Amino acid sequence: MRLDSSGLQVLTDEECLRLLTSTPIGRIVFTDRALPAVQPVAFCLDGDGIVIRTGVGSKLAAATRRAVVAFEVDDYDPVLRTGWSVSVVGHASAITDPAETARLAELPLDPWVPGDLDHYIRVSLEHITGRRITGAHSI
Amino acid sequence: MRLDSSGLQVLTDEECLRLLTSTPIGRIVFTDRALPAVQPVAFCLDGDGIVIRTGVGSKLAAATRRAVVAFEVDDYDPVLRTGWSVSVVGHASAITDPAETARLAELPLDPWVPGDLDHYIRVSLEHITGRRITGAHSI
Repeated sequence: MRLDSSGLQVLTDEECLRLLTSTPIGRIVFTDRALPAVQPVAFCLDGDGIVIRTGVGSKLAAATRRAVVAFEVDDYDPVLRTGWSVSVVGHASAITDPAETARLAELPLDPWVPGDLDHYIRVSLEHITGRRITGAHSI
Repeated sequence: MRLDSSGLQVLTDEECLRLLTSTPIGRIVFTDRALPAVQPVAFCLDGDGIVIRTGVGSKLAAATRRAVVAFEVDDYDPVLRTGWSVSVVGHASAITDPAETARLAELPLDPWVPGDLDHYIRVSLEHITGRRITGAHSI
């Protein structure tokens, strides 16, 4: 088990990918009018990327156009004080190819919010890191 | 009940502040070597700011020095598909005054990670927003 400089367990890429499939909600981190922004989104892992569905006119669609973004998922137990987090950094891109859009529409990616969410954003998994808090060090 | 352009319920500032006290873990969003970064942290609401405890030599301490950061908390029910999120944007500052550090050391702010975490960061609540998904619109 490898620990980082903070004493947290470093997760392998395989473990990070497994954990990315274990939760339906993640948080996309981007820049909105020169300020840091973060928004929870339903997502789906698809090959070497994360797929998010949003409205074509949404702030998220505009702000992530050809941008480098971060994406984070986590899960914590506040009683045991254990948990894990996985972060991804990669380029976001809008899916414009009709065939690819049709394929993505078949993914198990149901947004929790209302509206016409027929715009797909893909975030490539260029840099993926994960940490686990085992609880042994909690004070 | 006010809805935003996505059909999500807009939370009042009072509701956002109440929700900020309801969870021990949030996610701080900052820039690390020109790339977006996000890290889960234990935190505490203190007056008009968020207080985070970290190591003086940590990446988080370095990256948030005199920076504008975002901070996010949320909670979701994956079965009912309901949930809420609260986001804060504000200036981060390192607490260097010994009297203030001593006061913050008395806060109920126990980090979940090991190490000497005697460095306090304050994020002012300059812009706070919150949304709730009621589940009525889930598909």
